[in-house]
Amino acid sequence: MKNPLVGIVMGSSSDLSIMEEAAAILRHFDIPYEMTVASAHRSPEKTREYARSAQRRGLNIIIAGAGGAAHLAGFIASETVIPVIGVPIESTPLRGMDALLATVQMPSGVPVATMAVGRSGAKNAGILAMQILSLHRPDLTEKLLEYKEEMAHQVEEMGTEVAKHRETSDKV
Amino acid sequence: MKNPLVGIVMGSSSDLSIMEEAAAILRHFDIPYEMTVASAHRSPEKTREYARSAQRRGLNIIIAGAGGAAHLAGFIASETVIPVIGVPIESTPLRGMDALLATVQMPSGVPVATMAVGRSGAKNAGILAMQILSLHRPDLTEKLLEYKEEMAHQVEEMGTEVAKHRETSDKV
Amino acid sequence: MKNPLVGIVMGSSSDLSIMEEAAAILRHFDIPYEMTVASAHRSPEKTREYARSAQRRGLNIIIAGAGGAAHLAGFIASETVIPVIGVPIESTPLRGMDALLATVQMPSGVPVATMAVGRSGAKNAGILAMQILSLHRPDLTEKLLEYKEEMAHQVEEMGTEVAKHRETSDKV
Amino acid sequence: MKNPLVGIVMGSSSDLSIMEEAAAILRHFDIPYEMTVASAHRSPEKTREYARSAQRRGLNIIIAGAGGAAHLAGFIASETVIPVIGVPIESTPLRGMDALLATVQMPSGVPVATMAVGRSGAKNAGILAMQILSLHRPDLTEKLLEYKEEMAHQVEEMGTEVAKHRETSDKV
Amino acid sequence: MKNPLVGIVMGSSSDLSIMEEAAAILRHFDIPYEMTVASAHRSPEKTREYARSAQRRGLNIIIAGAGGAAHLAGFIASETVIPVIGVPIESTPLRGMDALLATVQMPSGVPVATMAVGRSGAKNAGILAMQILSLHRPDLTEKLLEYKEEMAHQVEEMGTEVAKHRETSDKV
Amino acid sequence: MKNPLVGIVMGSSSDLSIMEEAAAILRHFDIPYEMTVASAHRSPEKTREYARSAQRRGLNIIIAGAGGAAHLAGFIASETVIPVIGVPIESTPLRGMDALLATVQMPSGVPVATMAVGRSGAKNAGILAMQILSLHRPDLTEKLLEYKEEMAHQVEEMGTEVAKHRETSDKV
Amino acid sequence: MKNPLVGIVMGSSSDLSIMEEAAAILRHFDIPYEMTVASAHRSPEKTREYARSAQRRGLNIIIAGAGGAAHLAGFIASETVIPVIGVPIESTPLRGMDALLATVQMPSGVPVATMAVGRSGAKNAGILAMQILSLHRPDLTEKLLEYKEEMAHQVEEMGTEVAKHRETSDKV
Amino acid sequence: MKNPLVGIVMGSSSDLSIMEEAAAILRHFDIPYEMTVASAHRSPEKTREYARSAQRRGLNIIIAGAGGAAHLAGFIASETVIPVIGVPIESTPLRGMDALLATVQMPSGVPVATMAVGRSGAKNAGILAMQILSLHRPDLTEKLLEYKEEMAHQVEEMGTEVAKHRETSDKV
Repeated sequence: MKNPLVGIVMGSSSDLSIMEEAAAILRHFDIPYEMTVASAHRSPEKTREYARSAQRRGLNIIIAGAGGAAHLAGFIASETVIPVIGVPIESTPLRGMDALLATVQMPSGVPVATMAVGRSGAKNAGILAMQILSLHRPDLTEKLLEYKEEMAHQVEEMGTEVAKHRETSDKV
Repeated sequence: MKNPLVGIVMGSSSDLSIMEEAAAILRHFDIPYEMTVASAHRSPEKTREYARSAQRRGLNIIIAGAGGAAHLAGFIASETVIPVIGVPIESTPLRGMDALLATVQMPSGVPVATMAVGRSGAKNAGILAMQILSLHRPDLTEKLLEYKEEMAHQVEEMGTEVAKHRETSDKV
Repeated sequence: MKNPLVGIVMGSSSDLSIMEEAAAILRHFDIPYEMTVASAHRSPEKTREYARSAQRRGLNIIIAGAGGAAHLAGFIASETVIPVIGVPIESTPLRGMDALLATVQMPSGVPVATMAVGRSGAKNAGILAMQILSLHRPDLTEKLLEYKEEMAHQVEEMGTEVAKHRETSDKV
Repeated sequence: MKNPLVGIVMGSSSDLSIMEEAAAILRHFDIPYEMTVASAHRSPEKTREYARSAQRRGLNIIIAGAGGAAHLAGFIASETVIPVIGVPIESTPLRGMDALLATVQMPSGVPVATMAVGRSGAKNAGILAMQILSLHRPDLTEKLLEYKEEMAHQVEEMGTEVAKHRETSDKV
Repeated sequence: MKNPLVGIVMGSSSDLSIMEEAAAILRHFDIPYEMTVASAHRSPEKTREYARSAQRRGLNIIIAGAGGAAHLAGFIASETVIPVIGVPIESTPLRGMDALLATVQMPSGVPVATMAVGRSGAKNAGILAMQILSLHRPDLTEKLLEYKEEMAHQVEEMGTEVAKHRETSDKV
Repeated sequence: MKNPLVGIVMGSSSDLSIMEEAAAILRHFDIPYEMTVASAHRSPEKTREYARSAQRRGLNIIIAGAGGAAHLAGFIASETVIPVIGVPIESTPLRGMDALLATVQMPSGVPVATMAVGRSGAKNAGILAMQILSLHRPDLTEKLLEYKEEMAHQVEEMGTEVAKHRETSDKV
Repeated sequence: MKNPLVGIVMGSSSDLSIMEEAAAILRHFDIPYEMTVASAHRSPEKTREYARSAQRRGLNIIIAGAGGAAHLAGFIASETVIPVIGVPIESTPLRGMDALLATVQMPSGVPVATMAVGRSGAKNAGILAMQILSLHRPDLTEKLLEYKEEMAHQVEEMGTEVAKHRETSDKV
Repeated sequence: MKNPLVGIVMGSSSDLSIMEEAAAILRHFDIPYEMTVASAHRSPEKTREYARSAQRRGLNIIIAGAGGAAHLAGFIASETVIPVIGVPIESTPLRGMDALLATVQMPSGVPVATMAVGRSGAKNAGILAMQILSLHRPDLTEKLLEYKEEMAHQVEEMGTEVAKHRETSDKV
């Protein structure tokens, strides 16, 4: 098994179905990754060790997803200098606005690359990781360009589908 | 010098004018306290040591003030079991709503006793600390009751002042 | 039956399933508590008497949960000098933002130790109460440290579960 | 001096410049009023007595202005059955959104007639009081109709002024 | 059939289940009322005529409920000098925050007595109407005091229920 | 088939059920339209070509609906000088507030005529398109006036329905 | 003097400095316009007459700016079928969020083409008016295309300026 | 002059004082960069060419700052597969909340690494760029670790300063 280049961390196993979106992208691009649970508040020791050992263990990027007062990404970013991508998760009555602000509003000196709240954000975390890795891997750049084309193609197909719907409406 | 019972921590020395409100209350009630700067993100090592040594060093309560993605209070609460009081500080264009949500929306298991955003919150952090300490110090209870009476008295005086203003308006 | 040390108050019996989270913590730590309904707006007389008699009746802490223009915790805090912990409850279309602001934005002089909106907040209210009581009960400190370790352990187990999921994904 | 029909209460003398807008309306309509300071949190005893004695003392309406976790109007409404008009005041970094939600989101059974945040709200509190009193005083109805006409007239004049400005722009 | 004293207006028949709460209060207090649909935007002519004829037809108070850019109450208030009570209704993805701000933030000169968003607000609109009418009907004051007592009694009963639940928990 | 005068574009085929509201209005007024999917972010090339060719192809108006960081309408408006109508769609946990702000807060020089979030907004986009086209087609003005009357009539009927409900309540 | 094609209406003469941005655009494009003050709430009669006579008087478009519970644009849109453009103005402590929601969240059937809050919104209202008028005036289309080019040119120049700044920084 | 590795783009030259924070970091780390103005809405052609040529011209990362309906970063991200970092800028009455949501809430497939609103965000954009570049430049990793240490040191010094203030307070 290849050494993971990306670490996906989440604050609770209940975030798995969201964070799995990031993992799916990494598998799609054939990038070895690891996945674990670590809580900034409930298991700070583990989180710290995870963050501190990340670079040494060969990780290039950490993707961290959490809800509420979502400190996970920021906590990790305070302990490493590899890029940290934050995914705010909707897990409280405030619908993710809390997680978004707690993830993005980092002070000078400790950035977290923040994604959209929820599922789209997790998927994009995977893609941003690919973009970062691609800077020294032309094969990934190729794949990302293909992915972009594929997206455009899918939109094209949706356009055809909608245009058909439009014609049908006419006949009614 | 007496051993401090309360530690006041802030994320930056620019928060001092706000957090001084908490200190003023502690001095008013004659409670030994200490005051320092520690950043969850920029000096995590120091913050952790501070939090971990707190109980051993005799602190009963920690008051932590921070702005933006305000993780300071939550970070400390993850490392100690003494009560942690959080003061959200307005330090970004989002006017403290970010600091409030990042402080208060803590996950199950790690509470932060959150105060109002800004100056009133800092002052109330001092008073809540007094209330906690008073549970085993009847003298503090006495002082808190006097403080409450004094507040009511001040409101009474403001009422008199406003009533006078009202009479003057009449004559105009 | 032992004299209650903690009073749990809620604005309506419909808040019971939320506030029960606080009670469960108190039972877990074997702390005698009482539980009642009192409304700042619909039964102010009872609420006042409850708050005023609290200290005399031996209560050390009051936990108050309410929704909407959630005045319950602040009302009680205005009538006693023992610590009051507020739990904002989501009970209107505004999803608890109203309860949060009405609970936390207290004026100088009358603090409410505010928790997260909803279930996590209620649970944390119980834990904060334990932390306060533990200041003079080393046995509770021990139990709180065990609780913290248990949480870290649970996160560890979730991590293992997620890592397994990750391996399975690989094989697919 | 005539017996006051309207009581204007505010949480602090610092709210006077705002609440004076309500008073000015009452003077304009020649309605006897009283004005005082009472705080739901800092002088609950006085506030309660004020609210409880209101009807007996001949008050028909109470106008209450407060900021932050603005409980003043709701507190008074819980102790009387005469109409209570609430004016949310901007006095914290959250710019009055806290005061608005804490005033308006009252539970079933205890209404507060909530006005806009700040100066306009205070003025409108005075006018709503007039509208309520006018239900049994045709002279006030006349005056309110005149006031409405006068407003329309002022808007008309502003229109003329703006039209002139428009013509001048043309010549430039 | 007695002449209606209160008019309940709503922007759409889909608001009926909410606004029925206001009507139920009026029936409870035995106050004749009328109920109709009028839209500030879709039937302005009818709304204006409704508002303009209100006083002449003997109405003392108008209760208006609407969602979204909720102009109904403000529109009516611009055409009459009898008190207008506004009920913001949750009818868009923005969950009633739009209706609240569009109802409460009225300019100087044209007040709308704004209630909480939704069901509680509609019920309270009915009670506020009673409070206004009671100023010249001591019998209504009596009934309102009874209603207040009944509420306190209900809370008391909920307290008993919750205390029982608490005892049961103990035995588990 | 007549040349389309209005283009309806959406960011994804999942927005179709919302945007169909706009199309239904255009069919009702017998205006030829086209419908497609184009994404500002996933198919920028197609979107640009669509926007750039719009005027040449005879389109008078473009209606664009999108969710999240909804750039579609603004993107199109940057590439054409025909009027662009934006419909914010609720498609993330932030309930459309993100789409609203991303659509409406356009910089000086590039307007987007923004509608309400969701279904009502899509329908109104269709009506605004009719209003614009009607400036040179008196027949459309006639139809719009009829539509307005029909709306008023429907409200009238809802009023009758509600009044009946009111009478029934009385008898209960 | 030519017959005005566009009417600019504002809720108060204090909105003039904002709404003048729209007027400046109209003058730049040499479109005759008129400008007045009309308040949905303070001068409904005038506002209605203004809206009702608009089409008859030859107006093609109305631009309406207002703050707070900004009903002006919606009010006008309810009385005419020519396009109405709404400009939310920041005039209360809630910083224009109230005006934005009260303007944009219109119900089905009565659209308001909503612009950004404040100065940019007013300017864009003027440009949208030009875009609408240009549909039957190729000369305006030409001018709008020139305006677009000029904007791009200005951005180009800003780019040069910033690039220079960058070089200077290098030398420091 | 060395070939730039990072491009800093902003929507207007008025954003320069904010975006200069990013540039200062790049200079501090001795990374060649370029700086320009490009507007998603006012100069889309230039922006597209800039984004499309970025990789070919040797840029590794683009930092894009914009306010309001801030589409700049997302626009660029739609045209390239190198990482794009977005800085939301406060430039409207909505205080940057609009820019934050318009930047961060990107749809699946097109990530923008979003930073905090304003000055801190711009600085952190520079640091995140360093972190990304450091993945293949151990010298940068060293410098980033030193930078982190220096930050911790500065916090330490602020702590000493605050502790001194605390002692002085004591003597007063």
